[in-house]
Amino acid sequence: MRMTAEEVVDRMAALPGWALARDGAAIRREFAFANFAEAWAFMGHVAALAEEQDHHPDWSNVYNRVVIELTSHDAGGLTMRDFQLAEGIDAL
Amino acid sequence: MRMTAEEVVDRMAALPGWALARDGAAIRREFAFANFAEAWAFMGHVAALAEEQDHHPDWSNVYNRVVIELTSHDAGGLTMRDFQLAEGIDAL
Repeated sequence: MRMTAEEVVDRMAALPGWALARDGAAIRREFAFANFAEAWAFMGHVAALAEEQDHHPDWSNVYNRVVIELTSHDAGGLTMRDFQLAEGIDAL
Repeated sequence: MRMTAEEVVDRMAALPGWALARDGAAIRREFAFANFAEAWAFMGHVAALAEEQDHHPDWSNVYNRVVIELTSHDAGGLTMRDFQLAEGIDAL
């Protein structure tokens, strides 16, 4: 179920690295690593988390940089699943 | 060394799945798979190729879809390295 703006603001407070994107329909964080190999290793952990949670990121990579956007396509906006995945990613 | 437009057109002929992007500074191909796991497995092969060739893609993934753009950032456009990587990807 799509979260209300109040719920989103509340959860965002616990995720200082993330910002709202797509007019509030997604949360976004950029990660930088030493090189491609380290970025790729990180992506592997995120992919495993995504499969575990059955919730997948919209993400891109250019060499040592990874940009992750999380949204719930089926709900047309942010749900608890996005925040669960974001918290899992931050815990890596 | 950045390729001339003629060289690019010539190499493109051998890569029917790819299209020019970024005003001719990159080549782009989209791939679709059955699910995230298959898309991710494909990305693993591409990542290994990229490390082997020391030339890395600009790419993004949303669930079962992977979009790859190849460009040579240091040359400000397309070089033989982009076409070598594209050919390697097509051979996967």
